[in-house]
Amino acid sequence: MELLDALNWRYAAKKMNGQRVPAEKLDTILEAIRLSASSVGLQPYTVLVIDNHELKGKIHELACPQPQIVEGSHLLVFAAWTEIEAQQIDDYMKLIAETRQTTVESLTPFADSIKGNILSRTPEARADWAARQAYIALGSGLIAAATEQVDATPMEGFNADVLDEILDLPAKGLHSVSILALGFRDEERDFLSKAPKVRRAKEDLFIEFA
Amino acid sequence: MELLDALNWRYAAKKMNGQRVPAEKLDTILEAIRLSASSVGLQPYTVLVIDNHELKGKIHELACPQPQIVEGSHLLVFAAWTEIEAQQIDDYMKLIAETRQTTVESLTPFADSIKGNILSRTPEARADWAARQAYIALGSGLIAAATEQVDATPMEGFNADVLDEILDLPAKGLHSVSILALGFRDEERDFLSKAPKVRRAKEDLFIEFA
Repeated sequence: MELLDALNWRYAAKKMNGQRVPAEKLDTILEAIRLSASSVGLQPYTVLVIDNHELKGKIHELACPQPQIVEGSHLLVFAAWTEIEAQQIDDYMKLIAETRQTTVESLTPFADSIKGNILSRTPEARADWAARQAYIALGSGLIAAATEQVDATPMEGFNADVLDEILDLPAKGLHSVSILALGFRDEERDFLSKAPKVRRAKEDLFIEFA
Repeated sequence: MELLDALNWRYAAKKMNGQRVPAEKLDTILEAIRLSASSVGLQPYTVLVIDNHELKGKIHELACPQPQIVEGSHLLVFAAWTEIEAQQIDDYMKLIAETRQTTVESLTPFADSIKGNILSRTPEARADWAARQAYIALGSGLIAAATEQVDATPMEGFNADVLDEILDLPAKGLHSVSILALGFRDEERDFLSKAPKVRRAKEDLFIEFA
């Protein structure tokens, strides 16, 4: 589906119909997330892909009572890195060196500039920076779902500490920042499925300097 | 262009060739940004669209020395709201009521839930929340540019206070959080234009709970 058509088609479905997202469409959505841009390319987050009835039930009961959690097909949990340290940047240099068939040594200036920039920040500022990058990936997932005609409801209103606990995220150095429920809208039960999209007018959202 | 092809085609061009982005393509990119998802739909940001040679020169000189600032065609500055107050939420309710031909009164429970959720946070947490929403829009702009075969280089490494001053953002209740330079890659001068894309492997980025 064309991008603008897809963006006009999508909305945050409030009720889903339990229909399963086909594997091919899920793969496209995950690949779009994987290809997302991030600052310096570090991708400082992990995405949990939850396709387990019992686990979704537990999340619904304890961390996020919204119906899409259990009515949706798959849950994606975007979890930002809680700690960013030299090791992760060195691992990233190894990945670049492997991918581009170069040496890690030749990347030292790049590594040093990232370390100087990111590691000098407070832990809170680093975590916030990581969360922002995860939001770019969240947006990519949203858009990819729409082009695949899959509904995707992003959620922030959950108990992140409880969700982290359920998914054992602290032990993995992760903290959940948003959830994306994938599935299909229930047009009959969702009063928003026919409602016109509300967006700020161009004249209000943009300021042009010509 | 198909979404995954577009995402594979794109990269953060380090050198641009000065070619102008056609108005039609720019409109598509801005419309994708306007249609972006945001938490509760508030769109707590403004996007500055800079198409002025002198102003780009000033930004390049004082706030962001990267070459794409002047080699690109248009600069988009994503500026998050610095203050989120009841008035902005009430304005949003008016917009919903107009768009969906309903009364503002009928939206009171929604307004109250947003106010209870957002206004109870610290000013820093509100600003951070607004910035995250702007990052979803940044991601939408990136993707829309790619599908239009326009290069888009996102940047965080600029002096935000100086940029804010140049664009008179504090008086507008705005703070710049990222820049997107739009233009066309200079394949000859950009050593990255032929480099393979580096992304974490699927097995590393995702954790599946089946």
